[in-house]
Amino acid sequence: MSSSLPDFNSPNASIRERMEALIREKQQKITSSLESLDSGFKFKFDQWDRPNGGGGLSSVIENGTTFEKGGVNISVVYGNLPPQAVEKMRADHKNLGDANGNGVKFFACGLSMVIHPRNPHVPTTHLNYRYFETWNPDGTPQTWWFGGGSDLTPYYLYEEDAKLFHQAHKDSLDKFDTKLYPEWKAWCDKYFWIPHRNEGRGVGGIFFDDFDVKDPNEILKIVESMFDSWLDAYMTIVNRRKDTAYTEEQKQWQLVRRGRYVEFNLVYDRGTKFGLQTPGSRIESILMSLPTNVSWVYNQSPEEGSEEAKLVKVLQHPIDWAV
Amino acid sequence: MSSSLPDFNSPNASIRERMEALIREKQQKITSSLESLDSGFKFKFDQWDRPNGGGGLSSVIENGTTFEKGGVNISVVYGNLPPQAVEKMRADHKNLGDANGNGVKFFACGLSMVIHPRNPHVPTTHLNYRYFETWNPDGTPQTWWFGGGSDLTPYYLYEEDAKLFHQAHKDSLDKFDTKLYPEWKAWCDKYFWIPHRNEGRGVGGIFFDDFDVKDPNEILKIVESMFDSWLDAYMTIVNRRKDTAYTEEQKQWQLVRRGRYVEFNLVYDRGTKFGLQTPGSRIESILMSLPTNVSWVYNQSPEEGSEEAKLVKVLQHPIDWAV
Repeated sequence: MSSSLPDFNSPNASIRERMEALIREKQQKITSSLESLDSGFKFKFDQWDRPNGGGGLSSVIENGTTFEKGGVNISVVYGNLPPQAVEKMRADHKNLGDANGNGVKFFACGLSMVIHPRNPHVPTTHLNYRYFETWNPDGTPQTWWFGGGSDLTPYYLYEEDAKLFHQAHKDSLDKFDTKLYPEWKAWCDKYFWIPHRNEGRGVGGIFFDDFDVKDPNEILKIVESMFDSWLDAYMTIVNRRKDTAYTEEQKQWQLVRRGRYVEFNLVYDRGTKFGLQTPGSRIESILMSLPTNVSWVYNQSPEEGSEEAKLVKVLQHPIDWAV
Repeated sequence: MSSSLPDFNSPNASIRERMEALIREKQQKITSSLESLDSGFKFKFDQWDRPNGGGGLSSVIENGTTFEKGGVNISVVYGNLPPQAVEKMRADHKNLGDANGNGVKFFACGLSMVIHPRNPHVPTTHLNYRYFETWNPDGTPQTWWFGGGSDLTPYYLYEEDAKLFHQAHKDSLDKFDTKLYPEWKAWCDKYFWIPHRNEGRGVGGIFFDDFDVKDPNEILKIVESMFDSWLDAYMTIVNRRKDTAYTEEQKQWQLVRRGRYVEFNLVYDRGTKFGLQTPGSRIESILMSLPTNVSWVYNQSPEEGSEEAKLVKVLQHPIDWAV
C-alpha cells in the first residue's frame, strides 16, 4: 500500500494516483453512509498485503440490523504480468499487448463492493470501479483502461426503486455523453445474464470495461459521478424499504434468490474467476461477495400471479427503466 | 426413456442395456435404503425428457429428519455430438475421435447422487457412475468408457468412518485388481481438490474416468460392487452418527463447510460445468447437488486445537485411510 505517496487529489498527480485517492475516499464515504442505516453495527477494516506487490483494505459488516453482510474492498496492486497472463487477458482487453513476448508491468486499483441486506424488500447491490495500466519492460507506457459499473438485485420488485436507480445513473452520465448510458445499461443486462437459468441476476444498472476513448481526467470525473449516483440512489432505496414488515416465506424466497447470486458469481463472473485463478490473490476479499445465508430448493418455481413470479418475469425480460 | 427395451439383466443384453438396468436397480435400492433411516420422509420421483433424446428419473428428498436434502438421479441420454463438442470432450477422453469431422453418435447413462444430512456429525456423500459409448455416423463403433466414484465429506472428523468408507471400497476393488484402489484413491484426492482454498472437498474415496482397459462385462461387475460397498459403508456411518447431539455452533460450522462444497461444485466440478453449458440439460437435476442451507462467513478460521481445526488439517493433507 502506497500510503506515503503525495497528495493524490492534486490535478498534477498521475491518473493512477488520483484513482487510488478516489477509491480510498469513496470507501470511507460509502462505509460511513451505510453504517448510518444500521443500529450500532460497524464495518471492520482489514488491511492485507499482496505477496507480489501492493495490497488492499477490506471492510466488512456482518450480522447488522439492516445489512446481513456487506463488503467494501479496495485493492491497489502492481507487478509483472507474464506473457501467458497477457495472452489470457487480451481476450477481454483489445489493446493489451506484449510485442516482444516479455510480458508487461502492470498497475491496477479498484473498489469492489456487494451489500446483502437482511430485509427481503431491500435489494442487494454491487458496485465496482477499477483502473488498469501497463508498461513495457523498458518503462514505456503500453496501455490503460477503466472498467466497472453498479447494479441492483431485488428480491421483490418495486418498480420505483429500479427506475430511481437507473435514472440516477442516466442523468449523471448524460451530463458527460448521452451515448454512455444506453450502451452501458445494455452491457450490464448482457454481462449479468445467467444462461443456465435464462434470467438476469437483477434489474441491471450499468457496466463497462476496457474504456479508454475519452481523456482519462474526464473518465475519472465520470467514475466519481457514478459513485455518487449509486450512493444517493441506494441510500434512498434502503431508507424506503428497510422497515417494511416481511414474512418467513418472503425471507425464504430471498435465500433461494441468493442462490442464483452465488451461481452467477461462481460460474460466470469474470472478476471472481480471474481472482480465484490468480496465485497470491486474497480469497476472502474475493468471496466476501457471497451472502451469509443462502438456500437451494429443488425445482421451485413461484406461483403464477404472485409477487415472486412478477420479479422473475422482469429478470427474464430486462426493461428500460430510465427515460 | 427406453422402458420398452428387453431384459437388461440378461448376459446377452448389450453393455449399455445392462448398465441402464444396473442404475435403475440401484436407484431403487439406494432410495429405499436411505428412506429407512428417515422418519416418514420419502423420495419424490420426477421423470423428465431430454429434448434431443432420452431423459431421466430424478428422486429427491428434502427436509427429512435425517436428510436435509438428497438427490439420486439417473439419466439415459443419446443423440449426436457435433464436431465442436467432440473436440471439447477429447481433452478428457483420449479415445474419443471424429475422423471425418462429422461428429459422432453417442449414448450415455449414469446415476449421480449427493446426500446432505441434517446432523453435522453425519458426513455428506456423493456417488456417480456412468457409461459412455459413441459410434461413427455410419453406425460402426467408435469408443466407450466407464467413469465415476464416490467420496465422503465430513463436517467433523471421525477417523473410524473415513477408514470404514475407504476400506470397504479397497476390499471390493482388490478382489478385481489390486492396482485399482491406490490409483483411484489418489485420483479422487486430486479431482476433489479446491485450489483457491488449498484443501480437499472431503476425506476422499475413489474416482476414475475414461476407463476401458478391462472387459466391459468385468467393469460392470466392478461398478456394481462399488455401488454396494458405498451403500453398506454409508448406511453404517449414518446409523452411527444420526442421533448424536449437536450444538448450534456445530450446525453453523456445517453450513460454512457446505459453502466450500458449493464452491467446488460450481467452480471446478467438470460434470456440473459440462451440464450447465449443455443446451437442453435439466438444470434442476444438475444443481440438486447443492445443499438446502449454506452460509458464507468472512475470514473465518477454526480455533487451533479444536475439532473444526482437526478436520481442516486432514482436508489440507489427505491421508491413506485403508490398509
